[in-house]
This record gives sequence, C-alpha cells and structure tokens, in this order.
Amino acid sequence: MNRQIAEFIGTFTLVLFGCGSAVIAGADIGLTGISFAFGLALIGMAYAIGPVSGCHINPAVSLGAVAAGRMTFAEAIKYIIAQVAGAIAAALVLMLIMSGKADYSVAENGLGQNGWGVGYLGEYSMVSAFVFEVVATFLFMVVILGATGKGAPAAMAGLAIGLALVVIHLVGINVTGVSVNPARSIGPALFAGGTALAQLWLFIVAPIIGAVAAGLLFKTGTLDAEA
Amino acid sequence: MNRQIAEFIGTFTLVLFGCGSAVIAGADIGLTGISFAFGLALIGMAYAIGPVSGCHINPAVSLGAVAAGRMTFAEAIKYIIAQVAGAIAAALVLMLIMSGKADYSVAENGLGQNGWGVGYLGEYSMVSAFVFEVVATFLFMVVILGATGKGAPAAMAGLAIGLALVVIHLVGINVTGVSVNPARSIGPALFAGGTALAQLWLFIVAPIIGAVAAGLLFKTGTLDAEA
Amino acid sequence: MNRQIAEFIGTFTLVLFGCGSAVIAGADIGLTGISFAFGLALIGMAYAIGPVSGCHINPAVSLGAVAAGRMTFAEAIKYIIAQVAGAIAAALVLMLIMSGKADYSVAENGLGQNGWGVGYLGEYSMVSAFVFEVVATFLFMVVILGATGKGAPAAMAGLAIGLALVVIHLVGINVTGVSVNPARSIGPALFAGGTALAQLWLFIVAPIIGAVAAGLLFKTGTLDAEA
Amino acid sequence: MNRQIAEFIGTFTLVLFGCGSAVIAGADIGLTGISFAFGLALIGMAYAIGPVSGCHINPAVSLGAVAAGRMTFAEAIKYIIAQVAGAIAAALVLMLIMSGKADYSVAENGLGQNGWGVGYLGEYSMVSAFVFEVVATFLFMVVILGATGKGAPAAMAGLAIGLALVVIHLVGINVTGVSVNPARSIGPALFAGGTALAQLWLFIVAPIIGAVAAGLLFKTGTLDAEA
Repeated sequence: MNRQIAEFIGTFTLVLFGCGSAVIAGADIGLTGISFAFGLALIGMAYAIGPVSGCHINPAVSLGAVAAGRMTFAEAIKYIIAQVAGAIAAALVLMLIMSGKADYSVAENGLGQNGWGVGYLGEYSMVSAFVFEVVATFLFMVVILGATGKGAPAAMAGLAIGLALVVIHLVGINVTGVSVNPARSIGPALFAGGTALAQLWLFIVAPIIGAVAAGLLFKTGTLDAEA
Repeated sequence: MNRQIAEFIGTFTLVLFGCGSAVIAGADIGLTGISFAFGLALIGMAYAIGPVSGCHINPAVSLGAVAAGRMTFAEAIKYIIAQVAGAIAAALVLMLIMSGKADYSVAENGLGQNGWGVGYLGEYSMVSAFVFEVVATFLFMVVILGATGKGAPAAMAGLAIGLALVVIHLVGINVTGVSVNPARSIGPALFAGGTALAQLWLFIVAPIIGAVAAGLLFKTGTLDAEA
Repeated sequence: MNRQIAEFIGTFTLVLFGCGSAVIAGADIGLTGISFAFGLALIGMAYAIGPVSGCHINPAVSLGAVAAGRMTFAEAIKYIIAQVAGAIAAALVLMLIMSGKADYSVAENGLGQNGWGVGYLGEYSMVSAFVFEVVATFLFMVVILGATGKGAPAAMAGLAIGLALVVIHLVGINVTGVSVNPARSIGPALFAGGTALAQLWLFIVAPIIGAVAAGLLFKTGTLDAEA
Repeated sequence: MNRQIAEFIGTFTLVLFGCGSAVIAGADIGLTGISFAFGLALIGMAYAIGPVSGCHINPAVSLGAVAAGRMTFAEAIKYIIAQVAGAIAAALVLMLIMSGKADYSVAENGLGQNGWGVGYLGEYSMVSAFVFEVVATFLFMVVILGATGKGAPAAMAGLAIGLALVVIHLVGINVTGVSVNPARSIGPALFAGGTALAQLWLFIVAPIIGAVAAGLLFKTGTLDAEA
C-alpha cells in the first residue's frame, strides 16, 4: 500500500507543479520555466519517494519496466491506478486554486492539457505528435533504465532522469505540450474535456509504445556493458 | 550554539538572495530567475551548514521535523528563534543595499514580501493562497523527509530539496509570492508593513499545517519502504 | 556492438534534442533554453549509456581520448561511425517531425546547423569562429578528462560535463551556433546543404584540434594531482 | 607547477565564459543566462581541476583558505599569480573573438567589467556595491568552506559552490556586475580601462574582506558540527 500512496503523491506533484506552472505562470516563465517545472518536480519526487516505489509516477514507465523484466504486470497495474488517481487529484486541486482568480476559466485557459493540430501551440500535425511522443518516451525510458541499471551511479539516477524530462519539454512543448506520460495527460483532459479528451488516446498509446520498445531493448541486453 | 549560528546564516542567505533577487533584479530575471534564486540559495546552504544544523532555515520545516519525531520541540524553538532573526537581518541588509539606489523606496517597491488579493501579482483569493501554501509546504516537506530518510542517497538530499523549492516558486509566485516558510515571510513583512503585515498570519499558519501534516505522514510509517 | 548502439542512441539524442530545441522552440526558449537543451541531453545520456560506452557521442571527444591514451584509434573509428550515423538519423527524424508544421521549410528555417559570417546569428568572422571552437572544445575536453580522471568523484562526471556544455552554448551560440562536436555539425549540414555544407570543414577541424590538444595535455601529466 | 597551470586554466575558463557570455550573448540570454554561465563554468572546472588544485580560481578564496588555516600564505601567492594571469589571458582571447564582429568595440561594449554608480547597470552607490561584495563573498566562502569541510559529502561540493555563484549573480549583477573574485575583475578592467580601472580597488578589497571573515569564522570552529 505504501508504494501506491507514494505513486499517488508523486504523480500528484508532477501534474500539480508541471501543469500548474503552465496554467498559473506560463505567461511569465515561458516554455523554459514550464520545462524546468516538470523536470524538477520529478527530481524532487525521485529522491522523496524513490526509496519507497522507485518513483515511476508514469504508467508508460511502469509498463516499460514490465517489458524490461524489472516489474510484474500485476504490480504495474497497481502502480497505474495510483498514478492516474494522483493525476486526477492534482487537476482538481489546480482547479480549486484557479477558482480564486477572477479571469480564469477551464474552458478558455485550460489545465495544461496535451494536444496537437490547429489552435494548439505550434499547430503540428497528428503524425508529428505521434512520432515525437514515441521517440521522446523511448529516449526517456532509455535514460530511466540505463541510469538505474548496472554500472551507473544509483544516487544520480533521479537527477539524470529529471533533467532528461526538462530537455524533452524544452524541445516538445510546441509539438504536443509533452506527455510521455499517460497519467499526466489523463488528469487535465478529464476536466478540460472537448479536444483534449478526443485526442487523449494518442497520449496513452504513443508513450506506451516508446517506453515498451526501450524496455525490450534492455531486456535483450542490447545496452548492457560489454566485457 | 553553532547550530543556531548556522540556522541564522542559512536563513539570512535564503532571504537576502531570494527576496533580494526579486527586489534588485526581478524586472530583469523574471519569475524563472527568482525561482532559481530561492532554490539555489537553499542548495548552497544545505551543503554549507547541513553538517552543522541540518539546514532547516524554515520554522515550518523544524516543526515538521518535530511532528516526524526527528527533533524535540525545545530544540525546534531554538532553531526558530535563529531563523527569524536571520530573516530580519537579511531584510535589514537588503534595505541597506537598496538605500544606494535613487528610485527605490520600501513603500513602493517592497522587499519581496508575500501576499494575495487585489494588487498582489496574479491577484488570487485568500482561499487560493491558503490552499497553495498548505499543499506546497506539504509536498516540500515530503521531499525533505523522504530525501533525508532511509534508503535515499543522503548526499543528494540538499540538491533535491533545493530544486523542489525552485519548482514551487515557478508555480506559485503569482499566487502568494511563495512562502512555505514563515521566517522568509516575517523578515520582509516587518519592514514592508501595511498589507504584508496584515496578511502575515497566513504565511505562518498555512506552511506549518502543511509541514506538520507531512511530518505525521512519515511518523506513521506511511511512506516507509516496504519489504 | 553494444557500444556502437549506445553511441548511436546518444548522439541521436543530443542532435534531436539540441538542434530540435532550436528549430522547434528557439523563438520561445531563446539561447538560454537551447543551451540547456544541449547540455541536459548530454547529462541524460551520460548516465544512460555511460556505463556501456562512456558516452562520448562526439568524434572530437573520441579522438581526444585517443590523444590522452585512454582509447585505441581503431576503437575511436568505430565510435565515430556510430556517432555520425546517429546524428544523421536525428536530422532525419527532426525533418519528419517538422514536416507536420505548415510554415516550416528546411531551406528557410534550417536544422540547427552551425555556421558564421554574414547572415548567421551574431555575424562573427571565420577567425572568431575558429578560435572559439578550438578554445571551447579544448576546455570542454579538459572538463571531460579531468572529471573522469583520478581523484575526481566519478558519479559527478556526467553532470559536470553536461553543465560545461550548457555554458559553452550560453557563450557561443551567437558565434558559431556551437559545435565542439563534428557529428552534431554533420547531421544537420547534410540536409541543410548550401552554406552549412560549405562551412562544415571548420566544425570538423577546429573541435578535433581543441580536443586533441587537451588530450595531449593530460597525456603528459600536466594536469595530474601532485603529491 | 601543475596546481598553478590548473588555476590558470580554471580562472581563464571562468572569465572567458562568464564575461564572454555577457559580452557575446548578454542581450539574448539576459541576467539569468549570464548568472548560469558564471556558475556553470565554475562547476565544470571544480570537477576538472579540483583534484589538482582544489579549483579556487579566485584570489579571495585562496586568502580565505589561508584565514581558515587550510593553506599557507606562500602557496596562496602562487595561486593568485596563476589566477590573475588566467583572467588576463581570458580577456585577451575574448577581445580576439570580438575582433571578428563588425559593430563591437571594447570602449563602447566593454569586456564584462565590474562597476557601480551612474551609467553602470542598476546605478547603485559605492556603499551598496561595497556592502554587496563583502556580504556576498562572505556567504560564498561559507559555502566553499562548509561544503568542503567535515561531514559534508565531498563529491557535491563543486556543484553546491557553483550553484551558489549562480544565485549571487542573479541577485547582484545589477549592483556591481558581481565580482566576489578579484581576478575576475582585474582581467577585464585592465583592457576596459577608464572607470573600470578606477573602481577596481573595491573589487579587490571587498571580496577579500568577506572571504577572510568567513575563513576566520571557520578557523574558530564556529561552524563546526557539535556532538
């Protein structure tokens, strides 16, 4: 149970601080500030709850860990339930905070939801969005599995993984707002509704494909250190 | 006595550099720069005085440590006196530096004090301010207790905690200027006076609630690693 | 073979995220954001693939390692082939992503290629470009060899090296776009063509001179710790 | 001799990258980017040459180390000579690079020199400048001595010290351009001349006062961990 509480708190933090930075401060801190918000939230949680649950706080990461042979599927399901619940709770708390600001409405200003196409940030196509999310999650999962694997300094893993999330956001916010994490997408989309909900499938499917591909790469020993 | 001197210097640094960055450079470095100033000041001090006092430099953190069973209440009171004194000294030195700038006045430009409502940054309501400060301090304290707890790499704690403070500022400066630290609020408010002083209670009460809640969560073993 | 796959993935990541941040988000994140993108991509990969290949992801670094006596020339050639292939693959994927954006063309918006002279960023001369690339790569290689050498904490090397790449970009993007890495220059130049291809020689020659000079400095023991 | 070469290279890097970022990219990266340039240059060098010389790259730090009883005065003089030489060499290389830019002149655009008063950044008074430099260098030296002292994780020292330098710049560039390092001030001032040279004394005297005060604080055991 502690693991699930940890995953709940971790995903709650990632979504509240990541999406919150976009909604509350995006106009002031820009894409650079938002990118650091997501990555630094992950770093904080990696060291806070890492000892308890490993700090996946991302269903794609849990499924990638299954693919890599580092976790059972049954355990992953428990993690994913906690992660999605944490993301939903974060969206609710973010709405509560925003309810105290006069000129804000979820419909108009959103909750930091992901998306693509006309009217969404850089207005990239669905194909661009899909390719970006698959490739970025694949590389993110390579960092996660490599930095927590044999021969890597375990103490540094949380930092390396969080900084990788920063750079993924620096590159990709214009393309999709950056998911690489189905829970992070589900939370805001449920309340933003409309297009966010209609496009949600991509932010579940693409990150999972990328993360599982990376998991299999490690499973086969393709990125093991050689003698 | 060394512990109190350490807490004095640490809180002095946090307030001088954090609030100082807002007052001296806010127009140039924006919310992103101010956010890093607070967090990096904490990181510097975590490694400088951490070996002496643990670098709480925050009354809410000391009381959260009491709630978690890691510190006696009597010791916490000694810490808090030193922290508040350090914050006041920092506000004084900041005023001294600002006295050498022609177009500055405390009344008009402030000292980086916290607040909410009409005329304060994003003009969020008191409820938003309260919710944000409780939740943010709770999560901050989870990072502090988790990163310095069993199974976490002790050497990385200061970095993780400081980066968590960066992201909390990235998200919340528009809401309250971000306290999560009664001492950081008291120092500037004493000299800024007026609204800052009238609203000071929230930045004492809310952070303490959040930090103590996190302390109790750890006290009950809810975030202990399971076998 | 695993080492080459690692170098391929690592260089792919550096170029996709580094050059990608410039092309996709440069107008939003500015030179500061782009600088962090390059450096943080390197940090992520240092901990992900460092245990496999050492994470050179840069032909100049591999040749500098040869000069320092830490790698055979034959092994360096294998690394360099993988690095250049990874950089080319990254440029292709970046073009694929950009193909989903209406107002983008490689000819007009480029792929984050390096350059100098009239029409290129700060419009510095070829001599400035050459001096900057030699000196910056020399200092970058000093960080790489020093931080991975005797007496330095091995776990921190990836972080120190990546942050050094951030500062090199903060300083030098206006001068050359910053190469210090022939592979990073070759990938985009092949598809950007024109001036980028005509100026490519400098971004092969200058970084190699700088890195080999640093390698020789370490080979001679000039930067060994003294008793 | 290796120590002096290391201090030469380290100070060269700090001044070339720190002041270079201001001169070459200041208009693009702002005070935030310049702040990171100085701090990250120090981090890179801390891990590169720390094992050789301890990476002081700052005469005030060497004299503070003498005051703390960690270095002989004779050794400090050797360090200081190398540091000042490195800073001067960096200013020369920066001028060489800038000579390739059409609209640049040292007289008009400067070399990132320190200063105060009318016409210098925030136009703070000499008293403000003096107070800031003394206090900032004192706190910087507390971080240096604390983070490299007993009970602190030695591997993290370079990171903590460099990030402290970032926050000092975030706060203080508007006040003095931030010295806290006589060598960093001497290099650019020699070639910028005029006001920079006339005001140079403050950036030698104030940092030394601050650093020596911190050294004495540690010498007396005031910041030692208690039983």
